[in-house]
Amino acid sequence: MEFEELGIREECGVFGCIASGPWPTQLDVPHVITLGLVGLQHRGQESAGIVTSDGGAAPTYKVHKGMGLVNHVFSEESLKKLNMSNLGIGHTRYSTSGNSALENCQPFVVETLHGKIAVAHNGELVNAARLKRKLMRHGIGLSTSSDSELITQLLAFTPPKEEDHSADWVARIKNLMNETPTSYSLLVMHNGVIYAVRDPYGNRPLCIGRLIPVTSEEPEKRRSETEGWVVSSESCSFLSIGAEYYREVLPGEIVKISCDGVQTLDIVPRYRERDPSAFCIFEYVYFARPDSIFEGQMVYSVRRRCGQQLAIEAPVEADLVSTVPESATPAALGYAEKCGIRYVEVLCKNRYVGRTFIQPNMRLRQLGVAKKFGVLSDNFEGKRIVLIDDSIVRGNTISPIIKLLKDSGAKEVHIRVASPPIRHPCYMGINIPTKEELIANRPEFDDLAGYIGANSVVYLSVDGLTSAVREGIKHFKDQQNGLNGTSSHSSSSSHGHCTACLTGEYPVELEW
Amino acid sequence: MEFEELGIREECGVFGCIASGPWPTQLDVPHVITLGLVGLQHRGQESAGIVTSDGGAAPTYKVHKGMGLVNHVFSEESLKKLNMSNLGIGHTRYSTSGNSALENCQPFVVETLHGKIAVAHNGELVNAARLKRKLMRHGIGLSTSSDSELITQLLAFTPPKEEDHSADWVARIKNLMNETPTSYSLLVMHNGVIYAVRDPYGNRPLCIGRLIPVTSEEPEKRRSETEGWVVSSESCSFLSIGAEYYREVLPGEIVKISCDGVQTLDIVPRYRERDPSAFCIFEYVYFARPDSIFEGQMVYSVRRRCGQQLAIEAPVEADLVSTVPESATPAALGYAEKCGIRYVEVLCKNRYVGRTFIQPNMRLRQLGVAKKFGVLSDNFEGKRIVLIDDSIVRGNTISPIIKLLKDSGAKEVHIRVASPPIRHPCYMGINIPTKEELIANRPEFDDLAGYIGANSVVYLSVDGLTSAVREGIKHFKDQQNGLNGTSSHSSSSSHGHCTACLTGEYPVELEW
Amino acid sequence: MEFEELGIREECGVFGCIASGPWPTQLDVPHVITLGLVGLQHRGQESAGIVTSDGGAAPTYKVHKGMGLVNHVFSEESLKKLNMSNLGIGHTRYSTSGNSALENCQPFVVETLHGKIAVAHNGELVNAARLKRKLMRHGIGLSTSSDSELITQLLAFTPPKEEDHSADWVARIKNLMNETPTSYSLLVMHNGVIYAVRDPYGNRPLCIGRLIPVTSEEPEKRRSETEGWVVSSESCSFLSIGAEYYREVLPGEIVKISCDGVQTLDIVPRYRERDPSAFCIFEYVYFARPDSIFEGQMVYSVRRRCGQQLAIEAPVEADLVSTVPESATPAALGYAEKCGIRYVEVLCKNRYVGRTFIQPNMRLRQLGVAKKFGVLSDNFEGKRIVLIDDSIVRGNTISPIIKLLKDSGAKEVHIRVASPPIRHPCYMGINIPTKEELIANRPEFDDLAGYIGANSVVYLSVDGLTSAVREGIKHFKDQQNGLNGTSSHSSSSSHGHCTACLTGEYPVELEW
Amino acid sequence: MEFEELGIREECGVFGCIASGPWPTQLDVPHVITLGLVGLQHRGQESAGIVTSDGGAAPTYKVHKGMGLVNHVFSEESLKKLNMSNLGIGHTRYSTSGNSALENCQPFVVETLHGKIAVAHNGELVNAARLKRKLMRHGIGLSTSSDSELITQLLAFTPPKEEDHSADWVARIKNLMNETPTSYSLLVMHNGVIYAVRDPYGNRPLCIGRLIPVTSEEPEKRRSETEGWVVSSESCSFLSIGAEYYREVLPGEIVKISCDGVQTLDIVPRYRERDPSAFCIFEYVYFARPDSIFEGQMVYSVRRRCGQQLAIEAPVEADLVSTVPESATPAALGYAEKCGIRYVEVLCKNRYVGRTFIQPNMRLRQLGVAKKFGVLSDNFEGKRIVLIDDSIVRGNTISPIIKLLKDSGAKEVHIRVASPPIRHPCYMGINIPTKEELIANRPEFDDLAGYIGANSVVYLSVDGLTSAVREGIKHFKDQQNGLNGTSSHSSSSSHGHCTACLTGEYPVELEW
Repeated sequence: MEFEELGIREECGVFGCIASGPWPTQLDVPHVITLGLVGLQHRGQESAGIVTSDGGAAPTYKVHKGMGLVNHVFSEESLKKLNMSNLGIGHTRYSTSGNSALENCQPFVVETLHGKIAVAHNGELVNAARLKRKLMRHGIGLSTSSDSELITQLLAFTPPKEEDHSADWVARIKNLMNETPTSYSLLVMHNGVIYAVRDPYGNRPLCIGRLIPVTSEEPEKRRSETEGWVVSSESCSFLSIGAEYYREVLPGEIVKISCDGVQTLDIVPRYRERDPSAFCIFEYVYFARPDSIFEGQMVYSVRRRCGQQLAIEAPVEADLVSTVPESATPAALGYAEKCGIRYVEVLCKNRYVGRTFIQPNMRLRQLGVAKKFGVLSDNFEGKRIVLIDDSIVRGNTISPIIKLLKDSGAKEVHIRVASPPIRHPCYMGINIPTKEELIANRPEFDDLAGYIGANSVVYLSVDGLTSAVREGIKHFKDQQNGLNGTSSHSSSSSHGHCTACLTGEYPVELEW
Repeated sequence: MEFEELGIREECGVFGCIASGPWPTQLDVPHVITLGLVGLQHRGQESAGIVTSDGGAAPTYKVHKGMGLVNHVFSEESLKKLNMSNLGIGHTRYSTSGNSALENCQPFVVETLHGKIAVAHNGELVNAARLKRKLMRHGIGLSTSSDSELITQLLAFTPPKEEDHSADWVARIKNLMNETPTSYSLLVMHNGVIYAVRDPYGNRPLCIGRLIPVTSEEPEKRRSETEGWVVSSESCSFLSIGAEYYREVLPGEIVKISCDGVQTLDIVPRYRERDPSAFCIFEYVYFARPDSIFEGQMVYSVRRRCGQQLAIEAPVEADLVSTVPESATPAALGYAEKCGIRYVEVLCKNRYVGRTFIQPNMRLRQLGVAKKFGVLSDNFEGKRIVLIDDSIVRGNTISPIIKLLKDSGAKEVHIRVASPPIRHPCYMGINIPTKEELIANRPEFDDLAGYIGANSVVYLSVDGLTSAVREGIKHFKDQQNGLNGTSSHSSSSSHGHCTACLTGEYPVELEW
Repeated sequence: MEFEELGIREECGVFGCIASGPWPTQLDVPHVITLGLVGLQHRGQESAGIVTSDGGAAPTYKVHKGMGLVNHVFSEESLKKLNMSNLGIGHTRYSTSGNSALENCQPFVVETLHGKIAVAHNGELVNAARLKRKLMRHGIGLSTSSDSELITQLLAFTPPKEEDHSADWVARIKNLMNETPTSYSLLVMHNGVIYAVRDPYGNRPLCIGRLIPVTSEEPEKRRSETEGWVVSSESCSFLSIGAEYYREVLPGEIVKISCDGVQTLDIVPRYRERDPSAFCIFEYVYFARPDSIFEGQMVYSVRRRCGQQLAIEAPVEADLVSTVPESATPAALGYAEKCGIRYVEVLCKNRYVGRTFIQPNMRLRQLGVAKKFGVLSDNFEGKRIVLIDDSIVRGNTISPIIKLLKDSGAKEVHIRVASPPIRHPCYMGINIPTKEELIANRPEFDDLAGYIGANSVVYLSVDGLTSAVREGIKHFKDQQNGLNGTSSHSSSSSHGHCTACLTGEYPVELEW
Repeated sequence: MEFEELGIREECGVFGCIASGPWPTQLDVPHVITLGLVGLQHRGQESAGIVTSDGGAAPTYKVHKGMGLVNHVFSEESLKKLNMSNLGIGHTRYSTSGNSALENCQPFVVETLHGKIAVAHNGELVNAARLKRKLMRHGIGLSTSSDSELITQLLAFTPPKEEDHSADWVARIKNLMNETPTSYSLLVMHNGVIYAVRDPYGNRPLCIGRLIPVTSEEPEKRRSETEGWVVSSESCSFLSIGAEYYREVLPGEIVKISCDGVQTLDIVPRYRERDPSAFCIFEYVYFARPDSIFEGQMVYSVRRRCGQQLAIEAPVEADLVSTVPESATPAALGYAEKCGIRYVEVLCKNRYVGRTFIQPNMRLRQLGVAKKFGVLSDNFEGKRIVLIDDSIVRGNTISPIIKLLKDSGAKEVHIRVASPPIRHPCYMGINIPTKEELIANRPEFDDLAGYIGANSVVYLSVDGLTSAVREGIKHFKDQQNGLNGTSSHSSSSSHGHCTACLTGEYPVELEW
């Protein structure tokens, strides 16, 4: 199912790029960032923006932002405007906090006493209200409703007595991290440097890639050269720009990326040192593209294991296993594989439906979901189907699908959901329907199968999900290489996961 | 693969709708047609148009056309313009003959001595040049470059001596069919009637659906009521509007669809009676949506049988079978099933790539295909892959995919193509690259595997394809019902297929 | 007053250009035509189009059309599309007959047995309905509602027996002129030639200009060289392209304009030879730009003489004479001059008002006209004003102006209208409100001054208008030069004028 | 001449409206503001914005801004968004400081500790650089390049020790006025109040109007009712909304406008008390609409007196006086009147030329100015013309006009310029070409007549200009009424004028 329908949405993707060596560079930085953002488009489709810089001591910042998809916002002409650049950062967004107006578009650029900075942010500050009051009490007027303005003003903010240290941007970033525990993956561009920052709980993802030559005939030589560095919310954006995965930014880590390479400046500990990290488990379940890598494993593999686990937890006698295309397919293949029932397609997607503006009359509205799918009835007439979905959030989209299948001849339809039911709100960057809208909190949940017209419904257990996630986590050697001698922090990246929306257990006190 | 990349394109889809009973109707005809066209969007994405009518004796025709996708062309506002209608026809197009300007957009409306007609056309007239000269010799100036203007002017055309019969539109349609053997599926709207016409060779598809109530609680009663009739290039557009498949229009058949129902007026025989019909086999291979029904069978099933047949013709020792998503998946599942090798996904699609305007520099152009796909390397590292594609036309898109897979750890990549190589031009409505561009006509074809970097490449045979197609053809009872007593023509629909682009054997002499 | 408010509108402007000498030319033909059309923009603001040609024997025709103002329709990009041209014709339009859709946009291009022609037309055929039936009876389907399609089809039309003469375009044009007496000024482009045609009654204007070098230092040499020829509805479009006025096309004249120069092919007589010509007198009163030349005199001078005549016919005791800016200013200056009262401005225009989309509420609607004007109250407080308007058609715009002036301190406001009242419809290309809407046909006309709140109102008499027009008509020597030996026709251009909308006397029987 | 060509541009217009009485109001506030801004469109055409509020204690602010003309930015739909409002402020702008991006669009809204404020600003702060450093030193990051962000942040700014007074917005406005002497006319909206502020030097205009009923039959009763109050850069925007001129805001005055009426809160003195006020004299010469009232006199009257003064200073023997339409017409009529030579039109404007995108080739570029004008040659052939222009700034537009006139038969062309030559830059809100571009600073100025091809050229003297301005200044009774008992300040409004661009004498030291 589309995330839009589920009412669950990631808010943002961030992407940065810097060319190796001195200015002017051969690397077409604005094109690289644009393609990188296209690779993160699933994380935000309301607006996109890029800020580039020539990287000098008194750099010129070039900005282009707009409402809509990346390909819509960035034309050849706007890319020309961003040209002659050695580095830059970009952003694509949904709005969680902050409305969707152009003025809330990121990256934000502000001029400070110590030069201009540009900031791109993925996440949501748990203590935004307190930070806002603090800034306004200092006499600062806030012109947008976005958390990212809070971040830029907190970075610009200079307590009077500390004025002498004010040019130290790393100190400012650490100050910011002490003011707010989570959630943020940040890119801060200043002069010729991008600071890549992940909050101490590691709630939002962030990883680094290395741009390698794409033309050289000798693969070995190719691999050893570095044309530049990129940093991205997800590694899926690397393939299309010729970058190879380098490593994740660790929870709490401040990484400096410059034309000279990648350097860890510090790892800020969590507020309570005993807290585990809290990477959002829904990145695995929903948001991330299947080819992205988190914690050393491919998202696709986690989803397939969720399907396998579901086959163990909730088997059913049936003739075929199928998927609600496209996102549930890995789980469906995993389920089919584990229980030994044949995988068969029962629905095909109409890829031209898009966001239909048309508000149809009653007759056609009832047919809503049918616009999005075709029914491959020859494949399942008279058969018992196990249909795998990746989630049932409100319960109003699976119901017409079941009806379609039954009307077209399915004998039985058993629903298996490859994630646990959502019961609680998220305050860390994910838009979730209100508690009242969540099917798991409604009376209908008691007889969900009857309500949606299925022969049976079973969700994956929370334990099943976390074990499917943890089974594949790896500690890569090159991550250690990248962090020379920071082994003391390895415990801090102990791979905890935030399951608050499933369990109600939030990683930090919300009144922080 | 996208059709655009293959350089093979269908030119058009046609769709008509008429409400049962007298005017004014409850049925929202413009919305039904719009959704019907959305379901045919894969057949043409350059422009869309709808003409509606109130169906009276001196009807008002309302027209809206525009460049772009159906959802772009039809807003709430333009639909209001088309409202108060009992019937209408619509069209979505690529251009084969005729350029893509708005003035070539269909449906065409012309005023004639005997009232206004609107015409929508899918196909390409094999003898267009001769028809054009004939009209111009009669003193008619032609204002567009499209075959559809020829058709409308031929329908309007009145040889002086026959003036008295001129109001007989069926006679005019038969005249037209005698002037040009193929290819066309036509909708002609005049006053309160839609004439649905398929050329005697049945080269382009056309089928009829029945609009049934969607709200009634009693399924049986629901099924027996008829809210209206629709006619469409493909049955895949029926589901989203609450229509059920009724039957195909037969080759040469002229069907009259009015508020009173569906009636066969005549079946025009082929020029040479011994000729078999010549339904375009590429509708099965490429163009049609998998859930469409032709000749009594679902397209998906044909594609799966092509994969099975390919497994018989060209087996290979391998660890996994996979697909170039999404169109080759039925064939890949069929291949995997037949040869008993596990089906695994190796590529995922980036659905936001779309038509990228960006003309990247050299570095990024080399990465072109990587923008469209993510690589699920965990699924195939160290493995031998059989990769099923639905066609290799120019050979320049499969090559970088193979490189991606090998760079990401595939041990072997064997390509199996679920259709035979294209070697000849089409003159009946399909845009095919020039002979010189077709890989099957190039010297590289002799060592295709080496050229594209695969470990092996095998195409499906022409016989394999036709047997996969013919295996599933059924003669439905309701088709006979629909044609009361036209059994004499059942031989004329003897289910031949046009394979000219594969074999060079055209169904009619081209100099017709 | 704006023509839009008056509800009286000219329908079209036509413009053609051809370069001297052989292809390729130095002259930038598409730019010249675009600027020429900008100079005719006041004659039509709904759509614009240009067709250019390289002028060879098998020429390529390039077309660009669009809805909106010339500057909106023609971008640098679309002009590039029209480039590499030696000649072309353009059109800007309102719709009188024919609605405003893009498909009605001119010029029209049609392919005929004898090549492609492009046609641009200003006017309206008095016998359109009969011509339409004739064409349809011949079996031609008509796809637009415009008179121009009738013209192109009549030009393409070949009576069977005359087929051998069919390539003779001059004969075809003469045929056309025999089929329809008025009104049309036509440009027909075929291969390397533009035929400029004015109907035998000369109802719509058309004139020829000569492109002279603009850069040469020696004025005399400059004047003697010819870079090309242009043909235009009005001479006001010549200044901005560096053309000098050459001569008018005479009523009934067919002029051939080629790279070799200008040649009269024939002068088709009027249907009834005794009929005078019938040039639309409203071109002088309203439509034409003041710097255009008709019948040897500048339009501005006619308007000033109308003001002078009005001062003679309807003097009034007052303190100052003023204008409703801008079109009544020449008449106001003429009136002031003749009666010896000081000319003073009392209103200034807000040039940003444009077509306000805003549908204001009651309060603001009452202030409507005040949006368009500022009141220069210091200039007239306590004074008696004679306010000259160029026309009062519906009477609903002058009334609030009078109220504004009186509210701002005017002691008396006397209205003098520099044209006679309109009482009858026009069937020859001018859009006039219905008879019922015309103030001169309404009961209020009996006490018009009371109705509009003026102290007095007087219109110019019909005789006053015609004498103001005829006083300045000149027979230029170069017109005779251009027509070597066609003196027999000079009587046919006896400078009659169509005053049908004022008097109800139409130049031809309407049932023609 | 267009200001754009002169390279001299006003930067902004501001407009506010508040309904009388309690919420909800009958008054359609968003429409009133939109029409008010249309009336100020000549002051800024790059962008427009409106912020409205329901005026409660915790008001909702609704914002709409966009690039382009007012009528383009505000559709019915966007006005609905602003509805349900009791008050609001709007802005239309050019950019002087600050670039033209949407993020620089006004009004600005910021959230502060004491609620939201909205700010609209016309002017340019002479000490912007110092204010910027001060804010950044306090730790504030600035996100735009506009002076208006400085103003909003200075208003939000709270020195720690004064925190208790922080809700006192009048004190904050006075603080701001102490930080920066000029130039600004400001509207500050907070809760249900608009503060209208003019800088102590009165450099930019600002005036107040009273909304009176437009429908009542009894004029006297109508005049006595007040439907609301408006405040505007110029009074020319009052007529179209049914407001009558009330009075000017005085230099240094802070006026509170609420639903209860208009109240002077304070008049902040100038930095050096002996300084005269410094109203920009170019508002009279160029920027303002002729029907606006400043200092008790209509702008049109000043311009006419400039023409009269010019006739005294620089008479010439000639046959006719004319104007470069439209802005020089009042001066031309004044000149003609004073010297007794007949006023005649020699040029007419093509009002469709607009901003032509077309970059013509060499041939057509030389004809540039001819696109904008038609030549009324019949009016001046063989005559000696005195042509009045309102300014000659760069000297490159008058030259081709003179050539046009001479080519069309003028015997002599004498140029008289109704303002003195500009020689110095402006730092207070007017965009003036660089010193090097100003014709008065170039060597060509020594023989300007020869350079531009005129028979003579004379500018108005600075003394002539100031005496033409001062002659009409009046002290209205209602201004005193509005200021009950502030007579001590009447000396402060001693009607000085800023002539810095003419004389180099700036009203404040620039290093302030």
